[in-house]
Order: sequence, then structure tokens, then C-alpha cells
Amino acid sequence: MKGVLLGICRDATLVDITHEVPVHDVLAGAFELAAAYRYFPPGTIFLTVVDPGVGSSRRGLAIRAGDYIFVGPDNGVFSVVLAAEPVRVAVQLAKGPYARSTISRTFEGRDLFAPAAAWLAIGIDITHLGPSVSDVFRLETPSPVLADDRIVGQVIRVDRFGNLISNIDRAMYATFATSPVGAEMPGRSGIAIVTTYSDAEPGEVCALFGSTDHLEIAANGASAEAVLGVGRGAPVHVVRRA
Amino acid sequence: MKGVLLGICRDATLVDITHEVPVHDVLAGAFELAAAYRYFPPGTIFLTVVDPGVGSSRRGLAIRAGDYIFVGPDNGVFSVVLAAEPVRVAVQLAKGPYARSTISRTFEGRDLFAPAAAWLAIGIDITHLGPSVSDVFRLETPSPVLADDRIVGQVIRVDRFGNLISNIDRAMYATFATSPVGAEMPGRSGIAIVTTYSDAEPGEVCALFGSTDHLEIAANGASAEAVLGVGRGAPVHVVRRA
Amino acid sequence: MKGVLLGICRDATLVDITHEVPVHDVLAGAFELAAAYRYFPPGTIFLTVVDPGVGSSRRGLAIRAGDYIFVGPDNGVFSVVLAAEPVRVAVQLAKGPYARSTISRTFEGRDLFAPAAAWLAIGIDITHLGPSVSDVFRLETPSPVLADDRIVGQVIRVDRFGNLISNIDRAMYATFATSPVGAEMPGRSGIAIVTTYSDAEPGEVCALFGSTDHLEIAANGASAEAVLGVGRGAPVHVVRRA
Repeated sequence: MKGVLLGICRDATLVDITHEVPVHDVLAGAFELAAAYRYFPPGTIFLTVVDPGVGSSRRGLAIRAGDYIFVGPDNGVFSVVLAAEPVRVAVQLAKGPYARSTISRTFEGRDLFAPAAAWLAIGIDITHLGPSVSDVFRLETPSPVLADDRIVGQVIRVDRFGNLISNIDRAMYATFATSPVGAEMPGRSGIAIVTTYSDAEPGEVCALFGSTDHLEIAANGASAEAVLGVGRGAPVHVVRRA
Repeated sequence: MKGVLLGICRDATLVDITHEVPVHDVLAGAFELAAAYRYFPPGTIFLTVVDPGVGSSRRGLAIRAGDYIFVGPDNGVFSVVLAAEPVRVAVQLAKGPYARSTISRTFEGRDLFAPAAAWLAIGIDITHLGPSVSDVFRLETPSPVLADDRIVGQVIRVDRFGNLISNIDRAMYATFATSPVGAEMPGRSGIAIVTTYSDAEPGEVCALFGSTDHLEIAANGASAEAVLGVGRGAPVHVVRRA
Repeated sequence: MKGVLLGICRDATLVDITHEVPVHDVLAGAFELAAAYRYFPPGTIFLTVVDPGVGSSRRGLAIRAGDYIFVGPDNGVFSVVLAAEPVRVAVQLAKGPYARSTISRTFEGRDLFAPAAAWLAIGIDITHLGPSVSDVFRLETPSPVLADDRIVGQVIRVDRFGNLISNIDRAMYATFATSPVGAEMPGRSGIAIVTTYSDAEPGEVCALFGSTDHLEIAANGASAEAVLGVGRGAPVHVVRRA
């Protein structure tokens, strides 16, 4: 893919965001992309290939949303980004001058998405890449539920340190946490909400708002994933202290 | 190596093709390089260090072949590329102005190959790097055998999805598959030949021509390597359907 | 972090030295940095984030030392570099125009260190980033001991091939090795000191001066770490031959 990109746009600056999305896990890719994109300069083009349906009838897309462009399969990998950034234009990538002449049925990343991203980097208008579409596929992403006595969220991402990042953001938390609160995970209650990892004792499980402003369950100097033995999908509750 | 490259050629664009070649596995490196090089722009310089014999008497080489230049050890790592791209010039990398003044006996990648690649990127002619050689070392690479009732090939590469890529290419297949055919692996017969992964049922083992136009054994949404319990070197047969 | 860097300094050339430092292992990071920095061009800015104390009271630093600039946490990660390169200027990174307006308590790499590195790349003078400091924190790094009958060192780094790199450098070795010597590891004596890996028999444990001019324990074509079952901190002795 990088060879194809540089063959079209020799001056492109290429950055790998991650190669650690679990194989075929579109939702994990969607959350990783959402955690990173807003820190890149306006005009950045994000080429995303978590693509278990490659070669099937699922479409390839280029989407202008916010100040960015996103290129990849229409399988929901942009769902989390698009919940925050309204779609301005979306097109279905077509065969033609902006794709490789032969498109592999098993590697559209190389033959369809990479050329599209490179031509966009050169300055080709997005509407030249194919016909407009209005029905971009969205995955259902789990939303936290705000009840009287608790917020019921879940782990949506696990980082390389074993921190368990939930879908509970600061805004919902602020609405609820008008009196002292703590967090609960399966088999563990009374988790203190702190400001940074080192506010907890070494190895102690704690909760805090991490670098994307979502509540995460962590362990100071250790892996909360390993200590608690849970992963993506595990429930995270915020409860009022007795 | 990247520090040395940029110290000589500040404007070089560096791309990592892979860091996942198994340690000391020259043939695996040869197949990875062959799968990628043709998608890079003409003039690209490929610096290849899979080098178990570093510091021994094996030579360092720079080779112009096709529209590309290849730099690395003379241990066969270019064998698969050179089967497709005729050698135009090959030279043995020499001490002198285009190498670091001291060459580590354990890291010629940094002290000999990287400087050579950087000077080539600047535009130094390949013949300035050392004396011409005509006997580039080639590893024997396994070729498929075309028999009356079957093609007998083998797995030459396993990708990160667990797809098992064979040495059977489309041309040989077309010669043989004049009537309906299927594939066989150890312990598994009647593997259907499909067009893309999602043509198979979820988890089903199938065969298809992948992104480098070689027949690969795959499993839709799963790892064929794990499902079948085989890896590089395993036999892959294409047989006529009963 | 790369998004933030490129948002400030669009023309920066970004090189990843390694992502394989064990989580939270500051001393391992210090040795990795020291093994690499001197091969980069003068003026290179090294951004180092091995940062278990993120968000605590530990400071962020920018340090000009030798021909380079180092940016990162004041936790000792620069200790090995600074033993070789005298500090010319060191400043404590401050909030203000050269940091992001909100600094995450869990990711200062993105919000404090990356902006500082990018502004330095643009040419901002280091003294503009914050007040001068004179008490940069140093980790105690293990030094080898030269006795009458042996050098007593230890393994300070294990590379991806399983080579065990010690803290014994060529200078100390030359002082001691005025008569024939060999190396010893736990459970293994009489290790021959050779020039390169392939001087040993396949699989044989040997010792040699590696690419950073430190004595390393290796095994030809194999992992000394696996063969000997030891890692960082293991003793390495150089002894006179009987």
C-alpha cells in the first residue's frame, strides 16, 4: 500500500497509527481511529483497512467529515468518528483513473483505497472518485446508560498497557457525579476515581479519565486487563459511594 | 540504520516493508520482498537485512534489476526477485568512501548496506560502490510440479492473517484447470477454489488467488494456519474434481 | 503524538527507534536510546516516552547534550546518554505557547513533549520552553568492576535476536585482556571470545563485541537468552584462561 501511495503522491507523509487492531475486528478499529484522528492536522487523509469483507459486495468509500477525509471499506469502521464529525460528502470508490487497473479481490486496500487516498493527497476533488452515497453503513456502538443510581458502561478498547478504556465520557460523568462516586468492575467494587496512575498505590486498580477523556480502569505500573482478567465488552459501572 | 541513511541523504523517504520475517529465515525474507517490491515506484532502493552470516566472508551487494536497486547480503535473499527481474548490474560493496569508516562485524546493515543505499538515493552510480560481480548467490526456491492429474506445490509464505500462500501461480493453474478442479492440503480434500474470502462460509477453508496472484489456502474470517495446523513447506495440491 | 508533531512542524522527518521497550522499564529505554542516538545526524531531536510517572510531579525536560536534543520525562531515561554527552542546556517544559492548551494527566507525551519537540524542530530556542534546571535526575546504571582476575559485568540489554549485551566495553576489556581470556555466565564457563557470530559453531554460545562496542553473549543462529535462560541483570564475567 505504501508503495502504491508513493508512486502516485511522491511527497506524501505516511504515518502508521496502529498495526495492533485485532484481525477482522472492525469495531476495535473504529475506536482506535476515533481516539487518534483529531490530533492530526486538518486536511489529513486517513486510510483505514480493517476489512474482513474484502472482495464482497461491500463498497469502498471516501468521506469528507469535519476537517478530514476518511478512505476505506463501508463496513462501519468509520462509525465512531462519524458520530462526532458530520459527513459533508461521501462517495463510493469506482473503477477508473483513480484506481489500479486491476483490483485484487483480496486486497482492495492496495488497489482501490490506497490510490484514492494518494489522489486525494495530490488534490483531486473527492467527487471525482465516484458517485455520491448517502447511506454510509454504521455499526451499532455501545452507549452507556445513565440510571438513577449508576452509569452502566462497558470496555470499548484495551491499550498496550492493559488499561481498560470505557465508553463513559466526562460529560455524562459530570451529570451523574454530583456526590462522591466510585467505579465497579466484575469481581471488584469500590474502585477509586483518581487523576493519574501514580495517585494509586503500585499495582492498585483505579479509575481515571484518560487521554481521550473517557473513563478508564487502570492499575498503577501494571495491566488492569491482567489483574482483573477482563477485556473489551466487560461492564464498567460508576456508582454513588455509600 | 535509519540514522545513518538520513545522515547521508536527508530527504530520503523511508518505508518499512516488514519487521516480521522470522529471525535468520533468508528464504522467508526473499518471498516477502518479492511480494512487495513491484508496487513501489521505479527507482526505489530496497535495503534488505536478513543476515545470519553477518561478519563472515559472505559479500555485500548492490544489484540493479528491472527498475529497482537492491542492497543487502549475498545470501540468497534476492533469489525470488531475481527470478523475475534480470540483473542489469551487480557490484560487491567495498570499504571506502561509501561505507562507514569502521564496519562492525555484527551489524553490516548499519555500516555497509545503509550507507550504500543512501549514496545510491543521492544519485551515486552503482558502479562506484565496488567491483562488478557475476555470480550472485541464489537459494533454491521450491517450484510447483505440473503432473497429468495434479499440480504439486507448497506453502511458501504465511501472512499475518494465517493465509497459506503457495508457489502455484495463475499461469500454471490456467494450463491445468481446463476442467473443474479443487485443492487438497494434508488432512483436507475437496477445498473449493473461490474468488474471495467471503465466498466461503464463515470459518470454512477455501482456496483463491490472492493479492500476488498465487493460490492461497484461506479460511473466511479465520486463520487457515490455525485451522489446518500447517505452515511453510506444507504441500498444496490442485486436483481434478471427480 | 505524530499527529501533534506534524500539526506544528509539517516537514519533520519522523523515525521510530523502537516500540519494544518493556512497559514501564525506564532503564531498558535508557540503554536502547544510548545504543542508537549517535548514528543519527547532528541536530536530531529524540522524543522519549517511557513514562510510568506520567501526571505525577516528575518534570518534563528538554536537554541539549552533544550535538543532539533530548525531550522527555525527568525519570532517568536519559541517564546513559548523559554519561557520554555532557549537558549543555537543560530546561523544564512549562505550560504556555509551546504546549497544548490542555495537558492530559495520563499522556504528557502527546500534550507536552511532542509539541516541545516540534517547536524545537522548527527552530525555537530551547531556552524559550521553560526555566533552566541543573539537577536532571539520573538512574544509577550498573558499572562493571575490574578486579585482578576478572571483569564482573552484567547484562543490560537483550536484543530481538536474544543476544545478551553487557555493560563491558572495549576499553575496559583491553585493559584486562593482556593474556588470553574467556567469558562466563551462570551455568556456563569457557565461553570463547570471537569476532562475529559465524565464528562459532551453529547454536554454540560465544562472546563478542557487538555493534555498540559492548561485549555480548550470543549463540550462532540461535538465541543466547533462550539457550542460557537468563536475561537483563544476569552476571557476565571475563576471566583469564587457565
